[in-house]
Amino acid sequence: MPFSKDSDQVGMRKALEEAYKSYNEGGIPIGAVLLQSNGTILGTGHNERIQKSSATLHGEISALENAGRLKPEVYRDCTMYTTLSMCTGAILLYKIPRLVIGENVNFMGSEELLKSNDVDIIVLDDEECKSLMKRFIAEKPQDWNEDIGEV
Amino acid sequence: MPFSKDSDQVGMRKALEEAYKSYNEGGIPIGAVLLQSNGTILGTGHNERIQKSSATLHGEISALENAGRLKPEVYRDCTMYTTLSMCTGAILLYKIPRLVIGENVNFMGSEELLKSNDVDIIVLDDEECKSLMKRFIAEKPQDWNEDIGEV
Repeated sequence: MPFSKDSDQVGMRKALEEAYKSYNEGGIPIGAVLLQSNGTILGTGHNERIQKSSATLHGEISALENAGRLKPEVYRDCTMYTTLSMCTGAILLYKIPRLVIGENVNFMGSEELLKSNDVDIIVLDDEECKSLMKRFIAEKPQDWNEDIGEV
Repeated sequence: MPFSKDSDQVGMRKALEEAYKSYNEGGIPIGAVLLQSNGTILGTGHNERIQKSSATLHGEISALENAGRLKPEVYRDCTMYTTLSMCTGAILLYKIPRLVIGENVNFMGSEELLKSNDVDIIVLDDEECKSLMKRFIAEKPQDWNEDIGEV
């Protein structure tokens, strides 16, 4: 697929914009973008726990939900960009072949499980993703623990 | 936890009601219920792919979404009932310790992954769950394939 370092920067920038949008709404700053290999953005979204009292609209789920119903083959031609990875099951269900992750320092998703299912994973270790998330966790630790199911 | 064979039958009956409700709306007949050990129903739901053009509201996700925001410890005192298992990641994220599955003949979820994470799994092999699902798959194979990401 013709994804490149440049298109990955564009995809992650858009995901980060979603994360900032959520932060500015008082929400958890995780954003995601579903991008087709021809450059079409199919869906964008961000964590909606606080904004919509949602227990399931994490970043990637939100982007998938906003993309609406797609034919199964479309997902197989996509990359998911997320500032932080959490929605392993959805990536595997739809057989999305590439996942670009902003950072995995504040939270590590199930990268090994994804890799063992042949998902191509790129971790950008992006400073902006890390610092935005770190700031939120310091400000609202309880909301963050709720989001990751930690007591 | 004081879950029993009797309460499991009640939980699955309620999940099956949700599945029928979806079927009667023209949707995919998978229903789910999140039940606390004291018998409180925290959330019920069914697959909303067709009804809401949703790519993420599978049965269990729908029940979790309708339950709203819960404290992380609440999930650890729950059983999820689903006529058919699909939402492994959400069960693991929230550390729901018990999963009662109506049937795994028409579709097999990631039972091994759940078991290896200490989720207690009970498969009822329920005839009504099987026949309702089988009927839907025969009637609308394309919608079903879309739901499970099969080309």
